[in-house]
Amino acid sequence: MVGKISPLAPKAYPEMPLIKGVRLDTAEAHIKYKGRTDLLFIVFDNETSVAGVFTRSKCPSAPVDHCRKILSHGVARGVVVNSGNANAFTGKKGIATTDATAKAAAEALGATPEEIYLASTGVIGEPMDASRFTGLLPEMAKNAKEDKWLEAVKAIMTTDTYPKLATRTVDFDGHPIIINGIAKGAGMIAPNMGTMLSFIVTDAPVHPAILQEILSDKVRDTFNAITVDSDTSTSDTLLLFATGTADGNIKPLNQKNDPRYKILADGIYEILHELSLQVVTDGEGAHHLIEVKVEGATTNEAARTIACSIANSPLVKTAVAGEDANWGRVVMAVGKAGMEADRDRLSIWFGPHRLAVDGERDPRYSEEEASNYMKGSHIVIKADIGLGNGCATIWSCDLTKEYVEINGDYRS
Amino acid sequence: MVGKISPLAPKAYPEMPLIKGVRLDTAEAHIKYKGRTDLLFIVFDNETSVAGVFTRSKCPSAPVDHCRKILSHGVARGVVVNSGNANAFTGKKGIATTDATAKAAAEALGATPEEIYLASTGVIGEPMDASRFTGLLPEMAKNAKEDKWLEAVKAIMTTDTYPKLATRTVDFDGHPIIINGIAKGAGMIAPNMGTMLSFIVTDAPVHPAILQEILSDKVRDTFNAITVDSDTSTSDTLLLFATGTADGNIKPLNQKNDPRYKILADGIYEILHELSLQVVTDGEGAHHLIEVKVEGATTNEAARTIACSIANSPLVKTAVAGEDANWGRVVMAVGKAGMEADRDRLSIWFGPHRLAVDGERDPRYSEEEASNYMKGSHIVIKADIGLGNGCATIWSCDLTKEYVEINGDYRS
Repeated sequence: MVGKISPLAPKAYPEMPLIKGVRLDTAEAHIKYKGRTDLLFIVFDNETSVAGVFTRSKCPSAPVDHCRKILSHGVARGVVVNSGNANAFTGKKGIATTDATAKAAAEALGATPEEIYLASTGVIGEPMDASRFTGLLPEMAKNAKEDKWLEAVKAIMTTDTYPKLATRTVDFDGHPIIINGIAKGAGMIAPNMGTMLSFIVTDAPVHPAILQEILSDKVRDTFNAITVDSDTSTSDTLLLFATGTADGNIKPLNQKNDPRYKILADGIYEILHELSLQVVTDGEGAHHLIEVKVEGATTNEAARTIACSIANSPLVKTAVAGEDANWGRVVMAVGKAGMEADRDRLSIWFGPHRLAVDGERDPRYSEEEASNYMKGSHIVIKADIGLGNGCATIWSCDLTKEYVEINGDYRS
Repeated sequence: MVGKISPLAPKAYPEMPLIKGVRLDTAEAHIKYKGRTDLLFIVFDNETSVAGVFTRSKCPSAPVDHCRKILSHGVARGVVVNSGNANAFTGKKGIATTDATAKAAAEALGATPEEIYLASTGVIGEPMDASRFTGLLPEMAKNAKEDKWLEAVKAIMTTDTYPKLATRTVDFDGHPIIINGIAKGAGMIAPNMGTMLSFIVTDAPVHPAILQEILSDKVRDTFNAITVDSDTSTSDTLLLFATGTADGNIKPLNQKNDPRYKILADGIYEILHELSLQVVTDGEGAHHLIEVKVEGATTNEAARTIACSIANSPLVKTAVAGEDANWGRVVMAVGKAGMEADRDRLSIWFGPHRLAVDGERDPRYSEEEASNYMKGSHIVIKADIGLGNGCATIWSCDLTKEYVEINGDYRS
């Protein structure tokens, strides 16, 4: 954790409602940090449906391998998360650590290791000895409380400058359904200390297959539509749990054509959207949130590729850092994306200001207006490719000297 | 041009030998800069063979379009290059400018516009009025001299901190053959001011098709194997000319199976290699040259993709800036590249130091040795994927606060 809180941080944390049968506890396991919590145990008192999505890295961490392996069971009883060590690129030692952790947590809960989910974030390549913290788990299971959401997220922060929480309540035929979510990450992406982890819990009763369908669908335009530095962690993990403990005699949600599917999916989308924007606004060194909208591409996929090219371009990101309405760099990023584009049909907006149209500078372009717009903290860059109906939105942040400082100075 | 010369700059410029019939002149056309030259005219007194490769951007500049259009003629009589304005994203006005420039230069030389090559580097989207400099061309054609190579390259610098020149002499059956090259670029890639331009001239007599074959082959491991910030300019242009004015009764090189083909190609490779490394060591804000070697990938193409993933990773580049032997970030970059990889067969070296082997930290790893190595100015990162025989090398530079400063502060 760095001392200075991101200038883009939310002004207040939401009050997290309690979810029955979901208890949390944290501890100081001294895995790497001193004087702060670094271990989180989420306990589900009942069998809980689970869905997950994970990093696409070809070199995933041992906890990611563990979660992938057990996900088909679809039932969770607990989650153990640590910060300070990613247990990634740790060979057979890493597997021994995940096995020992899942076993100890299962014993503490009277569950099986296939019901224990794991996530680790921190340094890569450093063996992690599970015996440093497995002894703490039985006591944590006993002490865990339903009101410790804020403590929970604080235990898993690394380079985050603020804890990330979101909550929504949706309605299932007159019964309130809670969705609580926490996340860490400041750099989607920085594998040393910036892995993205997020855990969402709802008290709705939902079949795991339906839960997975919602998660896989909604992650695309939220956590898979943000970029801090284009680097993908070995450890990114997003887990969604449904306890079924909501009050009232609520029929399980087992089918996609159930009208409650959309209600729950929309609520989960809002949580994912809010948390993913919190991650990108806490992007290492970020001073500006950048929203890149691409329209008029040949397909949605092409629009997404072009939007990522703009959102990841170091030259676009440094221009925003310098509050410079440098739309020429957007032309460059569209051109290098490799998707179909026609210079003479391309238009570019910064916020409400159209800077370029039909392949040249807008005749009404005002440097002053554009420069004033760049002083804001949320910059919308829109490119209309002018060829079709494909569109996409990607969120990014600016590239500042602080980013270089955080990532150049961290380990030494 | 920034004031401070790159710490990686060569200690001296090479003495460029004269090439008969190749004359150069520069002028202050005040296109954007004051108090420096910004216009270069290269004159070929005879019909000269030409080959070229250009940016793959889908939004290329007007001069790139012009060169592509005339390249099939294979004959050049002159080259006009300006700095300060890229004549890119300038619509029909941009075409009018290239047409007028080619026509004026052709008239000054008694040539045709199809024999005049053009390149522009500088701001994107700003219309450029050719009449500002076409009037200078007749006088420049008269004043052009064979010994102005250094002046030539100085006129086309933008954010470069030093002029880039290279020369070789090879032997064609006892006759010396000169190859001279100049380049600009400090950022392959920075489209605002950092476009890569390079012009190579040999006095060998070579058929244009053979010249193109050599250039297309040799560019792959030189100018197409360097990256400063992964951004691709709208204007990158590399032209290779063969005048045939070397002394002696030299038979034209018209066939690939001529033993002189390899001699010339090797010499041109050396020029391209030297100039491309000069560009990357002048990378904006660079303090370290990074050589990324990937071995053991399934194919050469896979190795190249993985090497680019490492070489472009902001986290790898900031770690090198911080002189931090952070090999975990190399694991991350291998993992995110999307090519086949097996964590448990991966090994990583920083220079002579193997830091990771068989999917975990090398048991003999010494943090102190690795950290000492990182203090050097040329850092070799090697990843052995352990799956096949594919290999590739990509050159990059570190990502420093100065990079952010140069690109965040430039336009404003």
